[in-house]
Amino acid sequence: MTTAISKPKGERIEGGVTSPTGFRAAGVHCGIKATRSDLALVTSERLASAAAMFTTNVVKAAPVLVSEEKIQSGVAQAIVVNSGNANACTGAQGLRDAREMAALTAQQLGLAEEFVLVASTGLIGVPLPMASIRRGIPLAVRALGPDGGAEAAEAIVTTDAFPKTAAAQVEIGGARVTIGGMAKGAGMIHPNMATTLCVLTTDAVIPPHQLRGALRRAINQSFNCISVDGDTSTNDTVFCLANGLAGNPPLVDDDEAFTRFSRALAEVATTLARMVVRDGEGASKVGTLIVRGARSAEDAKRAATAVMTSPLVKTALYGAEPNWGRILAAVGRSGAGVNPDVIEIWIGGVQVVDSGIAASSDLSVAAAAMRGPDVEILVDLHLGDGTFTGWFSDLNEAYVKVNAGYMT
Amino acid sequence: MTTAISKPKGERIEGGVTSPTGFRAAGVHCGIKATRSDLALVTSERLASAAAMFTTNVVKAAPVLVSEEKIQSGVAQAIVVNSGNANACTGAQGLRDAREMAALTAQQLGLAEEFVLVASTGLIGVPLPMASIRRGIPLAVRALGPDGGAEAAEAIVTTDAFPKTAAAQVEIGGARVTIGGMAKGAGMIHPNMATTLCVLTTDAVIPPHQLRGALRRAINQSFNCISVDGDTSTNDTVFCLANGLAGNPPLVDDDEAFTRFSRALAEVATTLARMVVRDGEGASKVGTLIVRGARSAEDAKRAATAVMTSPLVKTALYGAEPNWGRILAAVGRSGAGVNPDVIEIWIGGVQVVDSGIAASSDLSVAAAAMRGPDVEILVDLHLGDGTFTGWFSDLNEAYVKVNAGYMT
Repeated sequence: MTTAISKPKGERIEGGVTSPTGFRAAGVHCGIKATRSDLALVTSERLASAAAMFTTNVVKAAPVLVSEEKIQSGVAQAIVVNSGNANACTGAQGLRDAREMAALTAQQLGLAEEFVLVASTGLIGVPLPMASIRRGIPLAVRALGPDGGAEAAEAIVTTDAFPKTAAAQVEIGGARVTIGGMAKGAGMIHPNMATTLCVLTTDAVIPPHQLRGALRRAINQSFNCISVDGDTSTNDTVFCLANGLAGNPPLVDDDEAFTRFSRALAEVATTLARMVVRDGEGASKVGTLIVRGARSAEDAKRAATAVMTSPLVKTALYGAEPNWGRILAAVGRSGAGVNPDVIEIWIGGVQVVDSGIAASSDLSVAAAAMRGPDVEILVDLHLGDGTFTGWFSDLNEAYVKVNAGYMT
Repeated sequence: MTTAISKPKGERIEGGVTSPTGFRAAGVHCGIKATRSDLALVTSERLASAAAMFTTNVVKAAPVLVSEEKIQSGVAQAIVVNSGNANACTGAQGLRDAREMAALTAQQLGLAEEFVLVASTGLIGVPLPMASIRRGIPLAVRALGPDGGAEAAEAIVTTDAFPKTAAAQVEIGGARVTIGGMAKGAGMIHPNMATTLCVLTTDAVIPPHQLRGALRRAINQSFNCISVDGDTSTNDTVFCLANGLAGNPPLVDDDEAFTRFSRALAEVATTLARMVVRDGEGASKVGTLIVRGARSAEDAKRAATAVMTSPLVKTALYGAEPNWGRILAAVGRSGAGVNPDVIEIWIGGVQVVDSGIAASSDLSVAAAAMRGPDVEILVDLHLGDGTFTGWFSDLNEAYVKVNAGYMT
């Protein structure tokens, strides 16, 4: 049941993308949104190892296609992100716009164009308002500062209620390595081998291929374990830059130091991922779902995904109803190997199902446990060693209100 | 784009399960629910060919397990159904209770026990209140009548706003064959090779194996094409009895007469399935989704399912927002073969996407088309001949209200 995540080796600190040495950031208003800031910039004072993961959606936004190309080199020095417009389903014009957005940023920063990564988030299908972007980039470059992490996090939000930043430190060979990050929610959240928008920075000395491995591990244990609404965005992107200014012994091997770094990176990513769920559109509760005893890790994830995306489970979470029948029914249709006669379910530490049937006719303790903001559900399939831990939000009237009036 | 469904050969008539010759039915209150009727009985005056389809959920309710066994014989004469309690996840006691429910019905009707099928719907995980069932069955037998179809339909509902009945007639070799049916909604509706509860009756002369083929075809074109909430119930069951009293030439071959009968059966099933969507928990609109141009029929269904179960698409349907980006994003993550650059989308007859990008910046006509109770969405993938037509409900505050307070 315990995962690497639940035993982090990093020490959490206050901070964000500018916490590691040598990173600056800014968040400005360029005019895509009416009044809120909508353009973020993150830069490293020197060329950094770079890794990324992108949406698995076949329909990919233009900035995803452009950044997928740029990340091949394994190095980058700046990331520019706009909110309010996803630059998705915008055809050839969208690709030109994404490239111009990166090129303008490179020009203003005096960098080679290939070292600038780009991301967008917001409404799909509307051309990127380039006049705003062109006006905003010089503003963002002028606003860059070593404490700009919070402003940058604020500038990438869409329907988020609060900006999301996190940071951690870990000691590697006598050097203090810092990791910072920011992410945005709050809808179309059901990442698959990628995430909503997330930028991670670190001053660790680590070559690109090792950074890619650490990032994949971190995201698979964090953003790939959450679900707000079961929809995977066209724009999901996570970037990670490592500029090497911490001066640690290079993390070149899969040794204990690398493991500690990876765990700290995963911890920052997990903190951000849980914030995304907490701030899921309309969310009033966070469910933590642990599936164990599955035939395989894949089966555990399959069962968990069915439960975490079930509207009936999500409304029961909202209503604080220990309706374990809905959990069991979701597991049953998940495609995971299941023997109904051996399943056990706990809600808030109270066993509600034993051998596939009600463990007790009194559900009042479980109901009470569901009234808090955090509800843990544990499903034991008793068929093997596969485990999965994920986080999901409830479904309520506020989610409907946010999403029924998004365009208009 | 046209399917057998859209060209029925049967003539729709008012009616339900007692419309065909030789069927009687009743709906009574036995005390599972506080005041509403909760026990339905359908009988044929003689032994009938019988076919059924059941939930694909691995977690199957006791009455499903019992009826799966009984249907092997291919014949039956009565169906007893209770609402208010699903008798699911009730272990060995549940199996005993389901068998006793069938046995008591057989005894009261003077039939062999193996000729009585049984189904339950309602809350999962609570033992069936057998005292109520034992009291109710004699009441139901006494109440049986040739006009009892409406009362029976009323007695199988759970959160439905209205009972659902349909009937059709078709001429087979000079004989008038009648088909009747009833179904219940309104949640956990995402059938897979089965359906919510549905009982179909007919006076056609048709052997069991032919009836099974006709039923499978009818359900695959109706109940297996609808989605309210993406959850597949533990109790999904459809029964079909054919008692042969119409005196038509036996439908023994896959000929034109069999095709006409199958289409009429599908028409009754489709009418009921659409009523279930219309009455989906909280539903205010019915979306008709047509996917065409898919690489295969399976791919078309895959793409359609992603769209029909997307909370973002469902809330946009509710809000009358022609947010085609959400439709495109759902298709993109569906797993179906997709080339984003050639996709076209129409909403309410208005083309909104051409070659994967906005067909027009003016969405006001499409928005106007979405304000009515019925909205047609057409997605053309332009990759092949695969088509699928399905029906789905919107997601709104009322759905949340119904489901956040189901138990309490």
